[in-house]
Amino acid sequence: MSNPQFSFRDTTFHGPSLLRERRETVRRVTVKTQLEQLRNTGRYECFMLKWHPIYDEEPAWPVPKSLFWDSDIAKWIEGACYFLVQNPDHEVDAAVKELVEDIRSAQQDDGYLNVYFSVVEPKARWSNIRDQHELYNAGHLIEAAIAHKECYGNNLLIEPIEKYVQLLNKIFGPGPEQRHAYPGHPEIELALLRLYKATSSVSAYNLAKYFLEERGNPTGQDGLLYYDWEEQQRGDNRWQRPNPYPEVGSHWYNQAHAPILKQDSVEGHSVRAMYLLTGAADLLYLHTKGVKSLPDAESWSNALNRLWSNMVDKKMSVTGGIGAIKQWEGFGIDYFLPQGTDEGGCYNETCASIGVMMLAERLLELDLDSKYADIMELCLYNGVMTAMDLGGKAFTYVNQLASSEKDKSERCDWFECACCPPNLMRLFGSLGGYLWDYGGEDEAFVNVHLFTTASLTFSCGEQNVRLKQTSNWPWDGKVSFDFSAPSTETTIRLRIPGWAEGDYKLEPQSEDSKIEKGYLVLPPSYTSKNPSFVFEVGGFAPRLIAPHPYTNQNTLTVARGPLIYCVEDFDNEWVADHFKNTVLSSDAKLTEQEHDLEGSHSYVAIHGTGWERNLEAWHGGAQGHDPSRAAKGDAVSLGDERKLVFVPYYLRANRGGRGQMRVGLLRK
Amino acid sequence: MSNPQFSFRDTTFHGPSLLRERRETVRRVTVKTQLEQLRNTGRYECFMLKWHPIYDEEPAWPVPKSLFWDSDIAKWIEGACYFLVQNPDHEVDAAVKELVEDIRSAQQDDGYLNVYFSVVEPKARWSNIRDQHELYNAGHLIEAAIAHKECYGNNLLIEPIEKYVQLLNKIFGPGPEQRHAYPGHPEIELALLRLYKATSSVSAYNLAKYFLEERGNPTGQDGLLYYDWEEQQRGDNRWQRPNPYPEVGSHWYNQAHAPILKQDSVEGHSVRAMYLLTGAADLLYLHTKGVKSLPDAESWSNALNRLWSNMVDKKMSVTGGIGAIKQWEGFGIDYFLPQGTDEGGCYNETCASIGVMMLAERLLELDLDSKYADIMELCLYNGVMTAMDLGGKAFTYVNQLASSEKDKSERCDWFECACCPPNLMRLFGSLGGYLWDYGGEDEAFVNVHLFTTASLTFSCGEQNVRLKQTSNWPWDGKVSFDFSAPSTETTIRLRIPGWAEGDYKLEPQSEDSKIEKGYLVLPPSYTSKNPSFVFEVGGFAPRLIAPHPYTNQNTLTVARGPLIYCVEDFDNEWVADHFKNTVLSSDAKLTEQEHDLEGSHSYVAIHGTGWERNLEAWHGGAQGHDPSRAAKGDAVSLGDERKLVFVPYYLRANRGGRGQMRVGLLRK
Repeated sequence: MSNPQFSFRDTTFHGPSLLRERRETVRRVTVKTQLEQLRNTGRYECFMLKWHPIYDEEPAWPVPKSLFWDSDIAKWIEGACYFLVQNPDHEVDAAVKELVEDIRSAQQDDGYLNVYFSVVEPKARWSNIRDQHELYNAGHLIEAAIAHKECYGNNLLIEPIEKYVQLLNKIFGPGPEQRHAYPGHPEIELALLRLYKATSSVSAYNLAKYFLEERGNPTGQDGLLYYDWEEQQRGDNRWQRPNPYPEVGSHWYNQAHAPILKQDSVEGHSVRAMYLLTGAADLLYLHTKGVKSLPDAESWSNALNRLWSNMVDKKMSVTGGIGAIKQWEGFGIDYFLPQGTDEGGCYNETCASIGVMMLAERLLELDLDSKYADIMELCLYNGVMTAMDLGGKAFTYVNQLASSEKDKSERCDWFECACCPPNLMRLFGSLGGYLWDYGGEDEAFVNVHLFTTASLTFSCGEQNVRLKQTSNWPWDGKVSFDFSAPSTETTIRLRIPGWAEGDYKLEPQSEDSKIEKGYLVLPPSYTSKNPSFVFEVGGFAPRLIAPHPYTNQNTLTVARGPLIYCVEDFDNEWVADHFKNTVLSSDAKLTEQEHDLEGSHSYVAIHGTGWERNLEAWHGGAQGHDPSRAAKGDAVSLGDERKLVFVPYYLRANRGGRGQMRVGLLRK
Repeated sequence: MSNPQFSFRDTTFHGPSLLRERRETVRRVTVKTQLEQLRNTGRYECFMLKWHPIYDEEPAWPVPKSLFWDSDIAKWIEGACYFLVQNPDHEVDAAVKELVEDIRSAQQDDGYLNVYFSVVEPKARWSNIRDQHELYNAGHLIEAAIAHKECYGNNLLIEPIEKYVQLLNKIFGPGPEQRHAYPGHPEIELALLRLYKATSSVSAYNLAKYFLEERGNPTGQDGLLYYDWEEQQRGDNRWQRPNPYPEVGSHWYNQAHAPILKQDSVEGHSVRAMYLLTGAADLLYLHTKGVKSLPDAESWSNALNRLWSNMVDKKMSVTGGIGAIKQWEGFGIDYFLPQGTDEGGCYNETCASIGVMMLAERLLELDLDSKYADIMELCLYNGVMTAMDLGGKAFTYVNQLASSEKDKSERCDWFECACCPPNLMRLFGSLGGYLWDYGGEDEAFVNVHLFTTASLTFSCGEQNVRLKQTSNWPWDGKVSFDFSAPSTETTIRLRIPGWAEGDYKLEPQSEDSKIEKGYLVLPPSYTSKNPSFVFEVGGFAPRLIAPHPYTNQNTLTVARGPLIYCVEDFDNEWVADHFKNTVLSSDAKLTEQEHDLEGSHSYVAIHGTGWERNLEAWHGGAQGHDPSRAAKGDAVSLGDERKLVFVPYYLRANRGGRGQMRVGLLRK
């Protein structure tokens, strides 16, 4: 039960690495920058339950602008606690304490705890569970409370939260007087299961299980789908629907179109889908470990596999981004993965890639298969890391693969819907926990998913097991390990990334090792004899990758190790069309060159040569481009040669420029 | 003022041709089959204003299932009259007369004439002009009345319709007590302008002009956009919206997001857009001919050119189909032209291609440029002709370029929303009018847009001018002309299709001819000396065409002359994936072979060789198709060779089979 949010404390980033640099930037800068944003926007004081002018502003019905404020505060507390526990900070500590006091004082006598429905619409509690995020906010408060208790060791936050959970347990459930509801925005499921792991609260487990099992029941409440029932209760016209619902009855928007076990494909809002499936994986995990029995465990396992595969194989960008469609911030049809707005959409919300990491980590605990870790790493170094600037003060919400004049490649200080920035805080705060799984009672194991420079210490029985990895990842594939477990039989498993294509070396060599589902397994016979060993994987030469042919993207993308690369106008000043007509050959000669980032790390840039596509050859002469005169043209007709400089996608929009960027270039 | 609906009577299809065969099938079969459908569905009796069970059925709010019934009847009458005027038919004649009597008796004292709002919701007249099609129905009644008068020479239908138009003129207009509205579904604009041409009714002209000029006025009614104002009047919540409106305020759905003169691109429901612009072109035409002055004529001309170009260059399929998106039956973003449902949409409604033909014909009258005629012919022989089976009894509504398991290539007997079948009737009825423009007072002219076998007779001054063309079009490019105009100076202009790429011959040759905007101009000096001449255009060798590169469609389509070809499982039995992985080389050797259709015409099939795409080469080995392991692969890796038989797109779904079809094959 080593969710990263619990286990990260066992890990320290003991030496320089890209991950440490990013995490330290968050700790030193981002935590305080975001605190400042909370203060400047009125969020910081929201639990004092005073009126704020934003409450008078017209909502994007039915979601008032302040509806997520509870979660913004909760996520900041959670993230702050992940840092405080390892690095005290007076200012941050004082803010956490003040916020916790406010939250405590905001709780109503019956346990209810929500800003908007205490201040603005006190009579509308639970009237629109589909859209109004009460349970989402509650989930984030639960996660904040767990982190707070782990950090401070007191019950100041978890006490009111447990009282709130008791109230939820009364209101929601299968009983005749209870609401047979489930959150419109899943989150609380995984939060409740974490609460169960932290406190053994069976009622938290039961409520999470209920939410997961009841979801999408077509006749759950008085013979109706719950959301249809509550719509009737509100007296809403069924043709009245929030903007993300394109048509009447778009229950797929929040994964309520069918019970989870009957869902064939991953649909709708991508963050909701990831949080939901993370909760489902946790539920299954508790069964697998014999903690809480789940009768239809196999069906849950099948559903998770089915939905994961649908997502990864057919609905994921090459950066690990998910959710092509802006309107519902979510998935399009299979293989619908354009690169940008002007091609049909490439939303790829930051929180969604963070959600993929959470889900992948849970699935690794269920089934140690490097395919999950590969995706986790892909998201971390690309879809997620691109979402914060080098300085730690600016963020993205949308992470498309190609800019356009309407949607340039750029970052913002903050968002009205501010879910992404504090989510980055939480992720980097708990990042150590994503590196490895470990445990054991008589015999120990460490499954190393991600490589960097970091040290792990945990106890197995009465022994301390220590494992230290040192590397220059993601720039170089050589990872040195130092291991100590005085008299514990220890198995260490090392992930061989898929992109290494089986190219790895171990020194000293091992005769007993084997490969299981993408992990090199070093048995006790090896680890007991080799307190130091070096693992080196290939795949660090620049390579070209292509999206699935069914995407209709005839493109090539430069990658190197775990990093996806892009071109930006900063390095390629000639560009005027967002690289829409820049062509790359599959036999392009790509060379590496180390570049420095002022005041930050250095990185490996990739240099090559391409061409401009000659569209005139297509338009030209008597052959206009109207369909009645459509030309045969060449698939790609080459024009001027261009020198191309590629930089890691996570670096985009950091060095000035005109916001022109593209990941996949036309294939010659 | 020779709209096809007026002028078609001057043309006879005097010998065998594909067009005549199709038109005769409509005359002999379709007119009666559709009459039968009208009777079977309750439509036939609707103007008797009795209750029908469909009125009790739940509407797809706010559109009851019977809301278009008036227009179904009107379009059938209009189409029937186009045939009756040349070929009497007792059964059809009796039905028209009965329907006209019913319509007359259904009119209310004040002139109001609408079935639904007389029978079901009499108090809701004009309460939802945005969605409830009252003005659309009125427009079709006007067109029916004009056709009826032309055919029967009496006023039985036009009399009540003119009374209805008087009522409309009272209700709608700029006056303080009038509604500053315009139809949610444009149609009445072009109908009113036809009424003006037929009857010189200035009030009809004024009302059409008002509708066209007022449309999209953001502050037209009490400072609001009319549709927002009427929504408030109804007390509708603004978040309540019909299914085709994806988000609140999607006024682009019916081209009301801005005044027409300020619209930058063609948006929304494609049929509405085409009818609207056809009306706008008529308005401008009347100015150009000095009939009715339009102060901002240049702006109207610019808007028409701008929107036409946007549509043709960026939003039109290779078949002339428009409107990729199913939800709003309309346009997607620029260059968003997938081939089928499983790639993101390819709706291409039949009525929309008919609308393109109407608009193209109007634009040709404004500006004789073969680019309009090329598109008109493209639509006729492909997007439109594909919409009816060989027998004339089954139709399509959607005309995608590629089938999929969820959306097979098939036809239906009828549709609940039955706009398309009677629209085909109207079009084929008036088809002769699309072939050519002609006229003149002292000197005559004939501009020949379409080639077939047909004869034209019209008078110029006191002379009769006759032009006869005989050809085997669309199979062969040789067209023989016979001309007689005893003592009239006549200029004949012959369109050189864009796909002929300048390859044409004239026999006897002419030294005085020149080419103007894609038309070969034969001056009186030539026509007076050559009562017979032969025009022959090239482009009848099979050719390969490609959609614009920005569509991300790396495909090749077989075309020959004006015909677009497809592959079907009927001729290519091995297919199991709707030709999704069938590959064609740009240097494919294509041969012609004449095939017979039992009981119908023969056609030129095209035979060639292609390959199956080898997807295994992409998936294969350690390289899964998840993005973390994405392969480089080849752009298109070839597998088994396949013999391919291509047939004209209009023929699809006629000969049995499994409904698998595709127009654009992968380019090698």
